[in-house]
Amino acid sequence: MIHKFKVRTSGKTDMVNITKEIGALVREGGLASGVCHVFMPHTTCGLAINENADPDVKSDINSALDYSVPKDFPYKHREGNSPAHVKSVLVGSSLTVFVEDSTLELGTWQGVFLCEYDGPRIREVWLRLIKG
Amino acid sequence: MIHKFKVRTSGKTDMVNITKEIGALVREGGLASGVCHVFMPHTTCGLAINENADPDVKSDINSALDYSVPKDFPYKHREGNSPAHVKSVLVGSSLTVFVEDSTLELGTWQGVFLCEYDGPRIREVWLRLIKG
Amino acid sequence: MIHKFKVRTSGKTDMVNITKEIGALVREGGLASGVCHVFMPHTTCGLAINENADPDVKSDINSALDYSVPKDFPYKHREGNSPAHVKSVLVGSSLTVFVEDSTLELGTWQGVFLCEYDGPRIREVWLRLIKG
Repeated sequence: MIHKFKVRTSGKTDMVNITKEIGALVREGGLASGVCHVFMPHTTCGLAINENADPDVKSDINSALDYSVPKDFPYKHREGNSPAHVKSVLVGSSLTVFVEDSTLELGTWQGVFLCEYDGPRIREVWLRLIKG
Repeated sequence: MIHKFKVRTSGKTDMVNITKEIGALVREGGLASGVCHVFMPHTTCGLAINENADPDVKSDINSALDYSVPKDFPYKHREGNSPAHVKSVLVGSSLTVFVEDSTLELGTWQGVFLCEYDGPRIREVWLRLIKG
Repeated sequence: MIHKFKVRTSGKTDMVNITKEIGALVREGGLASGVCHVFMPHTTCGLAINENADPDVKSDINSALDYSVPKDFPYKHREGNSPAHVKSVLVGSSLTVFVEDSTLELGTWQGVFLCEYDGPRIREVWLRLIKG
């Protein structure tokens, strides 16, 4: 069974903390111990695990990505969102987190983030729980 | 059991859509529901999930990566393919897609791509199916 | 059960080969066939699979990342390690390798690396084994 939930993003680029939503679905799904695979079904978003404390980190990550993947470039794709596709490929569309005692096991400072690169939009996140 | 298939790439950089090959091996492997782990056993290639519609997106992704990871750089590795190793690390060598009703579950516009950074060559892709 | 081990990194940036440690824990964990999920619980490190032969490749990867993710940038995060957070997001915090006959299945030239971007430090790596 694939668990799905929706996320509203703000601004052209955004990092939305989805750790609580994932943790809630892990408990609802009855997974005591195993892994939770997280999947991003959109081509102009990514999934990342990073700092959950200082919001300046999210803003710095998006500024640095804007620098590394420039907007003013002879892109061919006519929709004008090629930088978002590039960032999606670099950041990645799937990740795996561990579950123990029905709880998401993350490092002290970590959260799971939906990374928006062509917002604002309503996005979906998919989860699959595997016992182990 | 590890399922393997070969892919022929074109040009120095390429993105080859391998969605059909993966879907066929998922059905042959008899996986009704679970996850399909995809692994890239080469160090100058990557694996990505991105747009399956306009081929200009693939070309834009490769152009932007050429910009971000320059060719003219004082690299030490004498084989001359250091940019390919860098891109491989950035794009990644493993990803996970979901399977339901023996079918690969992807977003509307998504395909799975072998990303070639030091071609043209014959490459291998490895799959492992996990029930769940 | 989550398997954990510690790694000592050298220098501000580093790539430490952790293939042997992972292989040993796979055997100790008694996994004959399946997958080994590797997780990085720190927000200024990454996990990558790349060349295990010429050490110049590791040095080239870190030089190119220093070029793509500049140090001199108007970052807001006051700890001064924003480039490390950016690299962590780009390289990624989770990956999956295959196990067959109690052995890690990698390509000929591949190793698994802990990628340090804010060292030197003692880091942890987490593993979870799934039969399949």
